[in-house]
Amino acid sequence: MSFREDLYPTRLARPMEPFPRRDPVIHADAAQQADGPLNTEQLAAFERDGFLVLPDFFPRHQMEGFRRDLDSYGQDQALKARPEVITERDSGQLRSLFAVHEWSDRFDRLTREPRLLDAVRQLLGSDVYIHQSRINLKPAFHGRGFEWHSDFETWHAEDGMPRMRCVSASVTLTENSTHNGPLLLVPGSHKWFLPTLGTTPQRYWEHSLKQQTLGVPEPAHLRRLIEAGGIRPCQGGPGTLILFECNTLHASGDNLSPWPRSNLFFVFNSVENSLQAPFAAPEPRPEWIAARKRVPVLEPRAWQQQAIA
Amino acid sequence: MSFREDLYPTRLARPMEPFPRRDPVIHADAAQQADGPLNTEQLAAFERDGFLVLPDFFPRHQMEGFRRDLDSYGQDQALKARPEVITERDSGQLRSLFAVHEWSDRFDRLTREPRLLDAVRQLLGSDVYIHQSRINLKPAFHGRGFEWHSDFETWHAEDGMPRMRCVSASVTLTENSTHNGPLLLVPGSHKWFLPTLGTTPQRYWEHSLKQQTLGVPEPAHLRRLIEAGGIRPCQGGPGTLILFECNTLHASGDNLSPWPRSNLFFVFNSVENSLQAPFAAPEPRPEWIAARKRVPVLEPRAWQQQAIA
Repeated sequence: MSFREDLYPTRLARPMEPFPRRDPVIHADAAQQADGPLNTEQLAAFERDGFLVLPDFFPRHQMEGFRRDLDSYGQDQALKARPEVITERDSGQLRSLFAVHEWSDRFDRLTREPRLLDAVRQLLGSDVYIHQSRINLKPAFHGRGFEWHSDFETWHAEDGMPRMRCVSASVTLTENSTHNGPLLLVPGSHKWFLPTLGTTPQRYWEHSLKQQTLGVPEPAHLRRLIEAGGIRPCQGGPGTLILFECNTLHASGDNLSPWPRSNLFFVFNSVENSLQAPFAAPEPRPEWIAARKRVPVLEPRAWQQQAIA
Repeated sequence: MSFREDLYPTRLARPMEPFPRRDPVIHADAAQQADGPLNTEQLAAFERDGFLVLPDFFPRHQMEGFRRDLDSYGQDQALKARPEVITERDSGQLRSLFAVHEWSDRFDRLTREPRLLDAVRQLLGSDVYIHQSRINLKPAFHGRGFEWHSDFETWHAEDGMPRMRCVSASVTLTENSTHNGPLLLVPGSHKWFLPTLGTTPQRYWEHSLKQQTLGVPEPAHLRRLIEAGGIRPCQGGPGTLILFECNTLHASGDNLSPWPRSNLFFVFNSVENSLQAPFAAPEPRPEWIAARKRVPVLEPRAWQQQAIA
């Protein structure tokens, strides 16, 4: 007889205090850490803060193709009927497009960029696959923000991700500035797990992708982490790469500016951290939110050789 | 036979382009401008930008009494039943308390502060009265923002304010910083009137004080003014005074921080600009939103003498 261990209990009936994470932040051993594009200071900053902002990681001109794609998606009324496409609850404008790497070669190629994959393997110490991908849009004046949350809390509760061994990548397609709702991160928050209250209902994702009401940290817990670490806005021009640890608290404000803000978002999970049954939800979420069946291991070296050949 | 002139047509059935304001920004003559606390540079900045930010105008310790009052209002469940008290549409927390100078001596005294009244008379060139007063609250994490708008557009359409000869004062009770939803202003926007679309329904204020959907500028108009003037966040510690012209476009974001943001807001209208019938609404708004019957002229000099005596 055996019981499944749950290292990160959440969606509880009674409040539970935050506790320190039970996994390392950087999983790679010394040899793996030495072999990749991130230098010692960058690795130390990721360990300490839970994120890295790398301006000009991708050339600006490479982002133009994605922006053209987005313009054409915006024109495509049939697209809005697909379940992978989430619209704003007020304005009906595009908010998120999921699983884009499944149908866009351009997006798929970007997730296999050798420097990026090498950096992620330097952190996770194993092969990786794409757990989730999406494009996030915040149209001028109408784009709505996201409340504070840890992605890992959701992926653990609703997708059955057992451990914190996963890194998110956000690639900015437009300028991210003070007033168009940039990503806000709480330095150091990745070191604590914040159990949340509530019971996940069936098909909760149909609601949560427009507005998250469950899996939201307690205000008193948030306050302590923000007062300790502050709030860091990630600003930068198109092509900036933000790598953040799966448990780093983040949020973003509404877009009050005339400047649209859009970015690519995709999640690298370690192949040694594959999904199980959800820890706190009645059923797994669909494949387009959390890859379960199709998990091709990304092959940076092979891809690099192919690109050079 | 005579017809009433409407210099600022708005709430229209068909789009109308923005046009230059038909009133001066500073109404005082040269002698009046020379006689007051604002210096030449400050007067020039107000004329050019449509606002002035004056840090430490009131001593910090003077704000503490207001903060204590607010704490007691927050505890007072009976208060929420009053029409002058507006709560958040999501969380039910206090959002705005109107006509506070009518029942709070502390608030009433502040609106009669001699330096403040002298500054306002230096701009408006006449005696003044309080058109509207309120306390705005943005609780930690839950406080919601305000969309871009010109106050004058509403006061003209719904309150019958004929001319742009009115100045708003915002006094910060708490630190206003990047992440707690500070007032955002568009420099130079006060020089244009932006007619809006739509028809004001009966008792529209019951809706608009929680969320404004009418009297909202066209996105294309906003874009042009923001691209020309930019967005200026008003940050500062408790006791900062922000004076802004009644037609200056402003907005504010949600409060994503653990730091509550609250301020006093009150509007000085020229006694030569008294309210008429609404220009674009079926009925006048209540007295607590727009003073019409009770308009005591504020007397700075007399009050000053009394304070010294």
